[in-house]
Amino acid sequence: MKVVRFPQNPLITPADVPPTRPEFEVVCVFNAGVARYKDEIIMLLRVAEWARSDERVARVPVLEAGEICVKEFSKEDRSMDFRDPRAIVTPKGVMLTSISHLRVARSKDGINFTVDSKPALVPDRPSEAYGLEDPRVTEIDGTYYIAYKSVAPNGICVSLATTTDWQTYEKKGIIFAPENLDVAIFPEKVDGRYVALHRPVPRMFGAPNMWVAYSPDLMSWGEHYFLMGIREDAWDSGRIGAGAVPIKTERGWLEIYHGATPDNYYHLGALLLAPDEPHEIIARGAEPILSPEEPYEKEGFVPNVCFTCGAIQEDDRLLIYYGGADTVMAGCEISISGLLDSLVIG
Amino acid sequence: MKVVRFPQNPLITPADVPPTRPEFEVVCVFNAGVARYKDEIIMLLRVAEWARSDERVARVPVLEAGEICVKEFSKEDRSMDFRDPRAIVTPKGVMLTSISHLRVARSKDGINFTVDSKPALVPDRPSEAYGLEDPRVTEIDGTYYIAYKSVAPNGICVSLATTTDWQTYEKKGIIFAPENLDVAIFPEKVDGRYVALHRPVPRMFGAPNMWVAYSPDLMSWGEHYFLMGIREDAWDSGRIGAGAVPIKTERGWLEIYHGATPDNYYHLGALLLAPDEPHEIIARGAEPILSPEEPYEKEGFVPNVCFTCGAIQEDDRLLIYYGGADTVMAGCEISISGLLDSLVIG
Repeated sequence: MKVVRFPQNPLITPADVPPTRPEFEVVCVFNAGVARYKDEIIMLLRVAEWARSDERVARVPVLEAGEICVKEFSKEDRSMDFRDPRAIVTPKGVMLTSISHLRVARSKDGINFTVDSKPALVPDRPSEAYGLEDPRVTEIDGTYYIAYKSVAPNGICVSLATTTDWQTYEKKGIIFAPENLDVAIFPEKVDGRYVALHRPVPRMFGAPNMWVAYSPDLMSWGEHYFLMGIREDAWDSGRIGAGAVPIKTERGWLEIYHGATPDNYYHLGALLLAPDEPHEIIARGAEPILSPEEPYEKEGFVPNVCFTCGAIQEDDRLLIYYGGADTVMAGCEISISGLLDSLVIG
Repeated sequence: MKVVRFPQNPLITPADVPPTRPEFEVVCVFNAGVARYKDEIIMLLRVAEWARSDERVARVPVLEAGEICVKEFSKEDRSMDFRDPRAIVTPKGVMLTSISHLRVARSKDGINFTVDSKPALVPDRPSEAYGLEDPRVTEIDGTYYIAYKSVAPNGICVSLATTTDWQTYEKKGIIFAPENLDVAIFPEKVDGRYVALHRPVPRMFGAPNMWVAYSPDLMSWGEHYFLMGIREDAWDSGRIGAGAVPIKTERGWLEIYHGATPDNYYHLGALLLAPDEPHEIIARGAEPILSPEEPYEKEGFVPNVCFTCGAIQEDDRLLIYYGGADTVMAGCEISISGLLDSLVIG
C-alpha cells in the first residue's frame, strides 16, 4: 500500500525560514518532529544553516566556548577533502559544513505552516557542537519529550529536551551514548515501563539496525533488544531506523520507519510491533509505502531522500510529515486500517 | 609511579583450566573480574576455547539455537581471510576463532588460585552467540553485579548478571547497546544514583574514549557524560577504557584504566575522579603504572598486552589482577597513597 502525497507539497522550504544571523543562509529545513498542541499541529523543524563557502575558502560553523563561530579552511590545503558539499574531511576527522538547530512551525490545518522567527533549541554545549538534528516528539501526560540527535566531535548521541507550552524548553542531557540516532519514544508506558526505538551504529560487529530499550524514567535506558535488521537485496538493505513515534492501534504498535539502500535511496516503510512486547515484530511490510519520486524528493542537498520524524493520527488517517531530499518538508497520508490490513495479510 | 609484579606470575595459565568439552582447547585465561567473598578472593576468569584449526580447515565455535557448535570453513575459500589467528573475515562479516565463557577461580591468599571445573556463565542466547568476555564485578549490599561483554553478530554489548554466592547466577539482559565495552560499575551510589564508566565505540565522529553514565536501578543507564579521550602521542593514544572497578579514596575515585597505542601495546594507568561528580577528572597520570615487559605480557595470543578488569584493596595496598598477552592471569601491587600522591602532584 502506498501513501497519497499532499498536493500542496513541499509545505516548507528554506526560503520560508529566516537565518539566525545575517551572514548565514538556511540551506535545509527538514526531518521535523510533529505534535498536536491545543488546536494546532506543531512541526519541530530541523533547520540547517551555513556560511557559504566559495572557490577558495571552505567555511564551517561550529560551537566553541558556548558561541557559534565560523572556521575557515583554505581549499588549497591538500591534507583536506572538500569534495562533499555536506562535510569536510580533515586529518583529525570530519566536520560538517552546516549546523542545525530546531525551530517551531505552527498550523491550524496541517498544511499551511507559519515558521517561528527564532529557534526553539540551539547548540549550547560541547555535546551539541556540530548541531541538533532530527527530533522526534512524544507527548506523555501533557509534557512533550523531544529526543534529538546531538552531534559533536566526541560522537553522535541522542539527547532529551522537554516543553509543555512550545515557548520554553528544558534540556535534560544525553540519553543514548554514541553512536546512536533515530530514537522514537512510545507515547505511553508498556507494562509499567517507557519504551523507545533506537538505532545504534556499531563498528566491529553488526549493522545499522533497529533496537528497542526500556526505561523507568525516560532518562535512563536499558534492557536492550535487537528488534530487526537490514534486509538483503531490498529497499531497506543499507540501513534502517525509527521514523515517526509509534502509533497505538488495536493490532499493535504501528511504526513508520525509514530504510535506505547502500547507495542512499531513502524510503519509508511500515512495521507492526506486539502490543505488550514491542520488541517483538508482528509484521514488516515487504514494500515501501513511500519512495523518492517527486522532484522535491529527488533533487536537493541530498538527492533521493524521504525521511520522517513524525506523524499525526486523525481517526483512520495517518498524516506523515517528511523531509524531501534533506531540503524541504512535505506531507502525505495513508489509511491506518488499510495499511494494517496490507501488513498483516501481505 | 610503577607497580610491583607478583613474583609468582603468571598466576593462572590455560593449562590450569579444563575445557568444557573434549574437542575444545583452552587457549586463553585472562581479563578476570575480582571480588572478595567470605575469606576468599574470587577471580571471574574469561576463558577462551577453540576447536583447533588445521592447515586445510578453519573451525569457528558459535552458539546456534542454544547450542555451541563448530562451523568449518575450507581455507581454500578465496572469499575469506584466514590470516589472523583470532578471527576469520567472511564476506558477511567477522567471526571469532575462539569463544569465551566466564569461570570462577578461588584463593585464600590472592596468589594461589583453584579453578572451578565448570563454567559460571556460558553463552546461551543470541546476544551472546560469540561469547562472554571481560567481566567487571561490583559488590553492592551483598550482591555481586557482573558487567560483561556479550558478543554477537548483531553487536558487542554489555550485559549484566548477578550472584550472591558464586554458585548460582542470574542474567539480567543487555545494559549498554552496541558498540560498548569496558563497563565498570562503581561500588556505591553517588548523590543517590548508581554510576558506571563505559567505553562506546563510535563510527562517524569520535574515538574509543571513556564516558560516564548514571542509573536509578543498575539496569537502565543515561545522563551520559564524555569523561576523557585518547591522548595524542602518548601510551594511551589509540584507545582507552575502564579497567578495575573504581576504588573509593579520601581524595576521590581512583580508577586503574587501560590505554593502548595505535599499534596495540596495552598499558595500565591511573585516574582520579571527583568524589561527588565522578564525571569530572581531578588528575590523570602522565605515565603508565604498568607496561608489557615480562615474557608473559609480551608473548601470547595477543602480544604486548596488560589489561585489567579488577583490583582488590588491602589497606593501602592495591592488588591489581590483569591479563598478560591475552593468555594468562597475573598480578601486581601498588601503594594507593603513593599512587595518589604521584597523580595529584605529578
